[in-house]
This record gives sequence, C-alpha cells and structure tokens, in this order.
Amino acid sequence: MELTDLITRARRSEARALGRLISLVENESPQSREIDAELAPHTGSAHIVGLTGPPGVGKSTSVTALVSELRRRGRTVAVLAIDPSSPYTGGALLGDRVRMQSHSTDPGVYIRSMASRGSLGGLSATATASLRVLDGIGFDVILVETVGVGQSEVDISAVADTTIVLLAPGMGDEVQASKAGVLEVGDIFIVNKADQGGAESTRRQLRFMIGGNDHDASTWLPPVTLAVALSSKGFGDIVDAIDSHRIHLTASGELERRRTRRARREIEELTMQLIRARLHAGPHLAKLDALASDVVSGSTDPYSAAVELAGQ
Amino acid sequence: MELTDLITRARRSEARALGRLISLVENESPQSREIDAELAPHTGSAHIVGLTGPPGVGKSTSVTALVSELRRRGRTVAVLAIDPSSPYTGGALLGDRVRMQSHSTDPGVYIRSMASRGSLGGLSATATASLRVLDGIGFDVILVETVGVGQSEVDISAVADTTIVLLAPGMGDEVQASKAGVLEVGDIFIVNKADQGGAESTRRQLRFMIGGNDHDASTWLPPVTLAVALSSKGFGDIVDAIDSHRIHLTASGELERRRTRRARREIEELTMQLIRARLHAGPHLAKLDALASDVVSGSTDPYSAAVELAGQ
Repeated sequence: MELTDLITRARRSEARALGRLISLVENESPQSREIDAELAPHTGSAHIVGLTGPPGVGKSTSVTALVSELRRRGRTVAVLAIDPSSPYTGGALLGDRVRMQSHSTDPGVYIRSMASRGSLGGLSATATASLRVLDGIGFDVILVETVGVGQSEVDISAVADTTIVLLAPGMGDEVQASKAGVLEVGDIFIVNKADQGGAESTRRQLRFMIGGNDHDASTWLPPVTLAVALSSKGFGDIVDAIDSHRIHLTASGELERRRTRRARREIEELTMQLIRARLHAGPHLAKLDALASDVVSGSTDPYSAAVELAGQ
Repeated sequence: MELTDLITRARRSEARALGRLISLVENESPQSREIDAELAPHTGSAHIVGLTGPPGVGKSTSVTALVSELRRRGRTVAVLAIDPSSPYTGGALLGDRVRMQSHSTDPGVYIRSMASRGSLGGLSATATASLRVLDGIGFDVILVETVGVGQSEVDISAVADTTIVLLAPGMGDEVQASKAGVLEVGDIFIVNKADQGGAESTRRQLRFMIGGNDHDASTWLPPVTLAVALSSKGFGDIVDAIDSHRIHLTASGELERRRTRRARREIEELTMQLIRARLHAGPHLAKLDALASDVVSGSTDPYSAAVELAGQ
C-alpha cells in the first residue's frame, strides 16, 4: 500500500491503517522517516496528557473514565500505554482490550500498548515517534499512560503537555517520603477512590505539600481533585482542569517552551544516534580501530584519541 | 604540588599521592587529561582481575585471601571496589578498611572504593580512568570488585583481563536459572565455602554447564576451583589459574583483542561525550534551538533536523 494512502485511511479512522503506520515507526523501518516528514506539518494540534501514579491507584480505570468524558465532549482520543518493563509491543494488550471494551467499537478512540525499549533519555525514541504519528493523524487528545514503576512519572512529564498524577487515599505520606519529583511534575492531581475513607485528608495533605501561598495569577496552581474512576465521578471536573491548563499553557507561552524543550531533546538523541552509527562505519571505524590499538600500545590515551576522532 | 612530582611519589607507593591522583581523575578535574597522557606510555603491564558473584558468596573475604596470596608471591596489588548503587566515593569505605586491616600497613597494597556514576556503557568512565591510573603507576595486579547486583558481572568482564566468578554451594541452580551471561564471562570459577555441604555437587554442576567436551588445547577451559576464603584454602590454585590464564591470553592474542575492544569502547564513549558537549555550546546550540523551533512549528521533523545537525 502507498504510504500516502495509508495516511489518508488512518485519518479516516481506519484503525488497521493507523496500526500499520505506528508499527512502521516502532520498528524503525525505512518508511518511518518518510512518515515523520509527511506528518510533520500536521503535528502540534493534539493535547498530550500524561497519566502517572503508583501501582494499584486505579490508572487503567481512570483512563477509561477520562476517555468516556472526552468522547462525551466530542473529542477524538488516542491512548498510548507504555510498559517500560514489558517485552510485548505492537497492538493493544489483552488487558487493555478488556478494560476498554466500551470503546472498542468507537472509531474516535484508538488504543495502543507498547513496550518501551527504554533509553537513557527516558521514554524510548519509538514512543515519542509514535506520539508524533498520533498527533499528525489528527487526534484531539493523546493520553499517555506508563505501566510499571520507577522514573516513569518524570519521563512522562517530559513528553506530556499536561501531566496528571493519580493518588489514592492514604498515599500522601508516601509522596512526601518519596524523593521522586512527583510533586514538581504534576499539573493536575487526582485523589482516586474518594469513596474510601481518608480521601479528604489526603487531598488536604497534597494541597499543603504543593503549596500555593505564594501563588499569583500568572502561574499555574495544580488543582487537587477527588474522584471515583469506577463510577466516573469527578471526571467532568478533571477534563475542565485539563482544558484550563491548556489555556494557561498557551497564554503563558509555556506550551511553546515545553514543546521546544521536547523537540530539542528528541533532535539531540537522534543526532547522537546518527553520530554513533557513523563511528561504526567506514573510515571512522577504521580510525577508531587504529586509535584503540594506539591506546593499547601506550602511544596515546583514550581522551586524546577521542579528541582526535571527534575532530576537535 | 607538581603533577610529575605527584606521580613520582605515587610510584614510590605513597598512598596519599596516589589517592590524590585518582581523586583528580575521578572528579574529572582539568589535570585529569594531563595525568592520563603522562601515564599512557606506562600502561599495559598490570593484569586486571575482575571478581563478581551474588551477594553473600564471600566476595570481600575472597579479595582479602587473593591479596594475601599475591603478596606472598611478591606482587603489588591494587583493589578497586566499585559500588554502582552507592553515593559514596573517594577513599576506602569503613568496611573495606576493617576487612583489609591485615594489609593496611603494607605499601604494596592499595585499596580504593568508589561509587559508580553508572553510564549506559556499564562501569562509569571514571572507574575505567582510575584503572588506567593504577595500571600506569605500576601495580602488578589490579583486583576489581563490584558490590551490589545487576549487570555488574557483565560490566566487570568488559574491563578485566581475567574474570573470576564466585559461587557458593547450592548456587548452581541459580546460575542455570539466571539468564545473565555469568557462565560466558567467567574465565575462572570458584566455589567458595567449600567446607559446607554440597560444594562438590555444585562444582560438578558448574563443570557440566560450562562444558568442555569439545575442548581443544587452543581454547581456554575455565577451571572450577573449590575454596574456603576464610582460611585462604585453595587460593594458591586460584593464583596459579590466574597466571595460566594470563599466559593463555598472551599466547593466543586474546589479551590484545580484549584490550583493543576495551580501548575502543572507552574512546567511543569519550567521543560521544565530547560531541554532546559540543551540541550544548556555541553555534551548535543556537542551531539546535532553531531546529527545535522548526519542529514545533511543523516545518521539519526531528529526524531531518538531526541529519542537518549531524552534518550528513
């Protein structure tokens, strides 16, 4: 199939065509560069919302509730579930299919799970490339959810326009104790399972930790919302908060700054990949081998060799 | 103090002078390049022995026993204990001082602990740089021991001439179950705590897993030695095995190959560091910023931007 045809059909909400596009990008096929170039002029409209939070907090249910509310408002939604620890990729996992059953026949919803072949820079390069495809295809909102633990909350905030941090009653202490930058990265906080005891106390605790006394109108004060994802309670407020945050980001110039930062990081990582590949081929490889022999024989040291190879 | 003076004094086994040299390299001070260049012609004589094994197997005791046996044979020994998870660095940790007490007044022994500010390529660049200092100063043997778990056994084999894998009775199943390349990286296997039951069975199990039926004289068949580190039992055989391995490495050309591979990796990582630093300064930074803006506005895509920045 022609690439432009594939893109046209993906724009018409044909899930299979979109799935193929993303697979091409994920597998870093030769066409992936063409796809990227083709879609570039159409990127920038989607609002990328990152969802993060500790295991057991109700992330999956929250994503489902969020999708329902966004669809109720007529927005198209793509969900990208990233599992940094999973070897599985390509298409939605069984678990996703089950939990998102209510949306499975809705052409305005696309769900994709992927393993993250994690890199030093956080989420894998293929994950950010897939985000660009979903953006360029025309989704209004892209929800990025990381499964698993670790640095994921920080990683997700690096690719998202709006980062939502999910917590459950009683988790305030955990957040305080953690050295992770969860508080700094959150634009919106949700205390899920608010029908359980202790939700209000967790909300107050969070409110206190986030601060806000020195808040003025020009900065964003992250709201802390009580919710019950299982019954969609509170998700109207949450989508309102996402929209407010988007307006704030645009008005303050922060959206542009965040996206430029993100683009810079992407370009830098790709540049380093290109340069490393170049070191492994042709005349550079021969030079590298010769310098390595010189280091072993003691006629130079690794740093001087690197300076020579880098052409400084 | 003059650098050459510092080096002269370190060669005379002045521990403080050597400690300062390594600290300069560890902290990537401006002088570290000069030190590296100064010592380069004197590197290559030390035999680098890596020690790895699961926690609780008796690594520390084995290092002490190994040092004693090497000293008995008149060799000078440096011990580099690398803790990939520790934030502490610079000088020996309290634990090392205690366990190595018997060697603390011996000028032929130098002990250093360092945290590994781990990098993608395995052991930190500062760890390999410190190895080069110890080599250039003139130690006959350098023992590298990693504390902690994970990929360390593979990392250590990347810097060592000879890799020793330590196991204890009953650990055979663990090795078999593990997908880690412990079996592939080991040049010498020690079943420590051989005074406990099951040592001989673990030895046989290891022998079977390592293979050797298709062994011919030109390849190295890793010996599996029973030992009791606490009473130094078996460590004469182990040092003999290290010496045999060194002879095999030299005669087969494998020593040169391993060291060239190591030097290539070091040069490559330093080159990438130099290039990344260059991206963050001057005209390249301005270019990167401009390209990032172009990506955000949709007039280019990250890959095309990277190609432009890399100058391909």
